[in-house]
Amino acid sequence: MDLDVQDRVVVVLVRARNPGNIGAVARAMHDFGFRRLRVVNEFPVPFEAAKSAVDASAVLAEAEEFACVAEAVGDCTLVVGTTAVGERDLQHELKLLAEAAPLLRAELQPDPAHDGKEHCDSGRRVALLFGSEKTGLSNDELSHCDWLLTIPMQQHDGVRHPSMNLGQAVAVCLYELVRAPQSPQDPQAYSNEAAAEPILNPATAANLERVTALLNEVMAQTGYTRRHAANCDPAHVRRLVRRLGADAVDAPVWMGILRQVLWKLGVGRQE
Amino acid sequence: MDLDVQDRVVVVLVRARNPGNIGAVARAMHDFGFRRLRVVNEFPVPFEAAKSAVDASAVLAEAEEFACVAEAVGDCTLVVGTTAVGERDLQHELKLLAEAAPLLRAELQPDPAHDGKEHCDSGRRVALLFGSEKTGLSNDELSHCDWLLTIPMQQHDGVRHPSMNLGQAVAVCLYELVRAPQSPQDPQAYSNEAAAEPILNPATAANLERVTALLNEVMAQTGYTRRHAANCDPAHVRRLVRRLGADAVDAPVWMGILRQVLWKLGVGRQE
Repeated sequence: MDLDVQDRVVVVLVRARNPGNIGAVARAMHDFGFRRLRVVNEFPVPFEAAKSAVDASAVLAEAEEFACVAEAVGDCTLVVGTTAVGERDLQHELKLLAEAAPLLRAELQPDPAHDGKEHCDSGRRVALLFGSEKTGLSNDELSHCDWLLTIPMQQHDGVRHPSMNLGQAVAVCLYELVRAPQSPQDPQAYSNEAAAEPILNPATAANLERVTALLNEVMAQTGYTRRHAANCDPAHVRRLVRRLGADAVDAPVWMGILRQVLWKLGVGRQE
Repeated sequence: MDLDVQDRVVVVLVRARNPGNIGAVARAMHDFGFRRLRVVNEFPVPFEAAKSAVDASAVLAEAEEFACVAEAVGDCTLVVGTTAVGERDLQHELKLLAEAAPLLRAELQPDPAHDGKEHCDSGRRVALLFGSEKTGLSNDELSHCDWLLTIPMQQHDGVRHPSMNLGQAVAVCLYELVRAPQSPQDPQAYSNEAAAEPILNPATAANLERVTALLNEVMAQTGYTRRHAANCDPAHVRRLVRRLGADAVDAPVWMGILRQVLWKLGVGRQE
């Protein structure tokens, strides 16, 4: 995995509380050659306190702050959440980290159907989301994800929610991405698991979020929300749109359809 | 990898200075189901300070303290050091972590040439050595190792000795051991790299250390040490003995030969 590829992985920390953990994450990113750190917090992040982390100053200096997950993953074409798989009733497909890594690497490689520099800037970006030290990712935060990955851990008696230290979890995930770049089983794993319906030109999370917003408005304006409230939880609707698997061409089409419905309902403007 | 197997991996921290790091190591061990932590320090280890580590109390409660590396790895049949591969002139075979893991797992599996419970207590134990946060493992400490492993890291301009946070390094190494226990390529990797001369019944590090001590005495008593001082550095001699690849039967034979030489020289007692 070359630096160009590592540059297209975005590590997103959601509600990380401990500056020491943020510094440890930055150090792990630096160690494995990753640079793009984003933090989602409702309050200013104490980057100064985190900057004591050895060797991580470049990563921390370029770190970006966002007020919500939707903005932090807006330019990403694949959004993967991490979970320790407690008793939470997961709505997403869940993969072991070792199964997930080939899929992530495949997303970051140039499109095999094309070649040359036109794909050096394919626009593909992968977001890896890590939740707060105490609670992990909430259901609403998970709803921004295409699927989830988990690090296999030992189950201990009497412990309901095993979870790793945040810096260690990020280190393990990034290590898995770079551990054996030329691994021969990768293409096979990709063809078995993901290539059944490859999305050649995936939509960004921001465009999917726009589709989601329009769909919510349509459901509200048509009375669907009132009649089927159980289906209209915002996280539920967001997952519904993500499962469309919309590519970059499809997303604007869906937006057009939904805007047309709203116009017909007398609440939007026509395309 | 079942718990019985994980139980036969010993994590050895040599001159770890930071109680927080020791706690982080214990937590990573707990997360991945490993239990045997040993620390080598010249001064008492502040375990109390380390015990704030979440979920790691059982590992810390069972942790053992040793005054030197030889004692800490005495009952181990394979001793593997970790290094960040700076500019140090390594005397050992060096493997990437992903290449090393199948060899470690093979050492921990029951002997395929036998079966049944007689091998549940095969006596095989693997020691994984991690050096101090500042300096890593010294040449003398490395000399106790059969071979070395390294975690692949990004090279950054102007940085001479990349190194990882201790807790993260241990987490990554232990993750690699458990990431995909049924990985189909393991037997092949083992047959390619290690099975050329499998040691079916390896000597413990303690027995190899006894051979080393006798060899040192023979060299001193015969005048070899005086004539070839460059070959007689203690770390050099220890590596020499480890490269014998002595198994549990060979080691006593070597000890017998060396004792016989010493007796002949008039400085030891005959077998």
